[in-house]
Amino acid sequence: MTAFSDRLVEANRATWTAMAAHPFVLGLADGTLPEQALRAWVRQDRIFVLQERRVVAALRAHGPPDGLDRLLAGLDGGLVAEADAFARTAEAAGFPADAEPWPVCLGYTSYLLSHALDGLLEGLTALYAAERAYLDTWTAVAARSPAGSPYGDWIQNWTSEAFRGFVADLGGELDALAGSPSPAVAERLGRVFTGAVRFELAFWEMCWRGQA
Amino acid sequence: MTAFSDRLVEANRATWTAMAAHPFVLGLADGTLPEQALRAWVRQDRIFVLQERRVVAALRAHGPPDGLDRLLAGLDGGLVAEADAFARTAEAAGFPADAEPWPVCLGYTSYLLSHALDGLLEGLTALYAAERAYLDTWTAVAARSPAGSPYGDWIQNWTSEAFRGFVADLGGELDALAGSPSPAVAERLGRVFTGAVRFELAFWEMCWRGQA
Amino acid sequence: MTAFSDRLVEANRATWTAMAAHPFVLGLADGTLPEQALRAWVRQDRIFVLQERRVVAALRAHGPPDGLDRLLAGLDGGLVAEADAFARTAEAAGFPADAEPWPVCLGYTSYLLSHALDGLLEGLTALYAAERAYLDTWTAVAARSPAGSPYGDWIQNWTSEAFRGFVADLGGELDALAGSPSPAVAERLGRVFTGAVRFELAFWEMCWRGQA
Amino acid sequence: MTAFSDRLVEANRATWTAMAAHPFVLGLADGTLPEQALRAWVRQDRIFVLQERRVVAALRAHGPPDGLDRLLAGLDGGLVAEADAFARTAEAAGFPADAEPWPVCLGYTSYLLSHALDGLLEGLTALYAAERAYLDTWTAVAARSPAGSPYGDWIQNWTSEAFRGFVADLGGELDALAGSPSPAVAERLGRVFTGAVRFELAFWEMCWRGQA
Repeated sequence: MTAFSDRLVEANRATWTAMAAHPFVLGLADGTLPEQALRAWVRQDRIFVLQERRVVAALRAHGPPDGLDRLLAGLDGGLVAEADAFARTAEAAGFPADAEPWPVCLGYTSYLLSHALDGLLEGLTALYAAERAYLDTWTAVAARSPAGSPYGDWIQNWTSEAFRGFVADLGGELDALAGSPSPAVAERLGRVFTGAVRFELAFWEMCWRGQA
Repeated sequence: MTAFSDRLVEANRATWTAMAAHPFVLGLADGTLPEQALRAWVRQDRIFVLQERRVVAALRAHGPPDGLDRLLAGLDGGLVAEADAFARTAEAAGFPADAEPWPVCLGYTSYLLSHALDGLLEGLTALYAAERAYLDTWTAVAARSPAGSPYGDWIQNWTSEAFRGFVADLGGELDALAGSPSPAVAERLGRVFTGAVRFELAFWEMCWRGQA
Repeated sequence: MTAFSDRLVEANRATWTAMAAHPFVLGLADGTLPEQALRAWVRQDRIFVLQERRVVAALRAHGPPDGLDRLLAGLDGGLVAEADAFARTAEAAGFPADAEPWPVCLGYTSYLLSHALDGLLEGLTALYAAERAYLDTWTAVAARSPAGSPYGDWIQNWTSEAFRGFVADLGGELDALAGSPSPAVAERLGRVFTGAVRFELAFWEMCWRGQA
Repeated sequence: MTAFSDRLVEANRATWTAMAAHPFVLGLADGTLPEQALRAWVRQDRIFVLQERRVVAALRAHGPPDGLDRLLAGLDGGLVAEADAFARTAEAAGFPADAEPWPVCLGYTSYLLSHALDGLLEGLTALYAAERAYLDTWTAVAARSPAGSPYGDWIQNWTSEAFRGFVADLGGELDALAGSPSPAVAERLGRVFTGAVRFELAFWEMCWRGQA
């Protein structure tokens, strides 16, 4: 039987396809990203990962099972490192890392946070959507990344065995908690997941086009 | 198959028995409650129902299914009426209704509120425990209540068809949401339910013995 | 001394000006709104007010002072009526009221909800931003609305004495709670307010341009 | 001017006095604690510190100022160490560390958690009450602890310079956030603080007398 986490992905296959074909994603993979898109991404994604730490804390406040709690503790450490990497990228490229969040970025982090506050299963579903979308999208385009690409390290990071293992473990925790959810809960979690992946796509669109 | 809500009660049968045999409960049913126990109960239970309104609001903030949302809206109205009835009882008996919450009262309402904030299913499970315990306990002792008992109206209220219907509907909503919960969620909700009914029993003990 | 609530507005004067000059706002006032913009607005704003009910519940779960609790109860009733009015407008115009939320709509409601869950003062500040922006913006353009405009009732609603009184009372409750906030809290609430009014502007932009 | 955090303590001076004179506290200081009281304390306090980790996570989910966030991260690590120390004490004394929480323990942790979920200032006030009560109470009785007391390490821990510095820093963060709170907020936080210290006293009473 298909795992609950995989069924969530299946139900959003069109968005998955759209993410892997998005000009921002392809530009980062090819190493041809325009300066303005790079700058938007580095700044807004840095805001995103800093806010994601609150999402992780909100999930841990639910008193999750031990295995999930350990995964979340590890994620928190990873987010600190990722925020630092964004700051170093900004510095290397010669622009300030600090910026105001744009509405889609603020909306996406608010969406994740409100669900993490709402409930353990709701918040875990939204977080899994974000992490799984990253893994699958960068995996889909990783082969396009030329040797020596300035963004090669990022793509390597999000397609590494470590990250793949983390996403698999997170999905395993979600599946174990969700079990065979009632129709009402399945509908609720399905809506949460779909909203998150639409934000993921909107986020890349925002980086590509600028704020509007 | 036994409904999830009924299995929760089954797993706490000993507490159910202890509640229906508790001297406070018997004293209220018989109409022989000492003045001090009456006073403690009226004041602390009034605090309880006022705090329970926050529990209801926290549950509604999760965006529950429509049927459950309507039940909760109705409960909120009932709690306002119940707080008024406690105030009138205090006035008729000649003592002020206002009081400081005692630790067990404050602990019980904090327990319900923290679970209502924690998640829809967690909070609904805790609330159901409180309501079902009231229905079953007063139903078990209602026949002892003599005609003209000063507390007859209270017992009638908590054994009425309307209240029985409300508790059945609340259990139905819980069962529909919970479905066949995963072992992890069943364990989690079972713990929430057991904690709530232990508080229910501790609450009556508190009314009977005084604060200590 | 300028009230805290008024200082929040002062600090966002540029957004206030931009709202009152936005083509969507002018189009609704003039009665010249393109069909597509009307449709987007009716559907997305209906989603907004339905979600705002969760915001109200989350605020009430904090156990606000009595006067504020009553204001929020009244707002909840108003939101039900407003959602119905949107549904009737959709029906009269011949399109289904139900729709999927667009990212900016979902982001805005998530933003309000996450702050309402975060704290009483944080959530009240965000809610006040939304209500005050509506009052001030429609007041600024109300004189443009010709007699017999199909949208005249909406503008009348958001510029009525009743709505003005509600917003003033809400601001009064915010000022009473906030007092003279510490620099850290003033900065925190200022950020919450600014984020909300930027979403308000982004919402109208979304209705005017379509989802993208 | 007296700091806000100190005024909270002043308003609860009677409870402070009662804590430092409580037979459980004196018994631990003197090293004369009955076996049953020791066992109750080790088990229930271990549950307490494990649940307090959720309180810390809930506070961090509010996105506190950086200095406070670092203090909370440090506290989390300390709680893990403290839970381990309780487990080792249980092992050395030959009884299992695992136990069911008693109502007052469950009520106290629910109280802290519900306020930590309720808001940053509310939760910080409740947490500060618990930490400050520990520091002041053990400081008051530390001189009674004889050399070689089996509980000497515990008392040394809660009267150490490190712990004193932590509590001072936590109070400083509370004072910086609270500023000169409005009457409504001062009343709200005062109530939160008083409830927490009453639970602290009730907790020791529970350890001393057993569950009832």
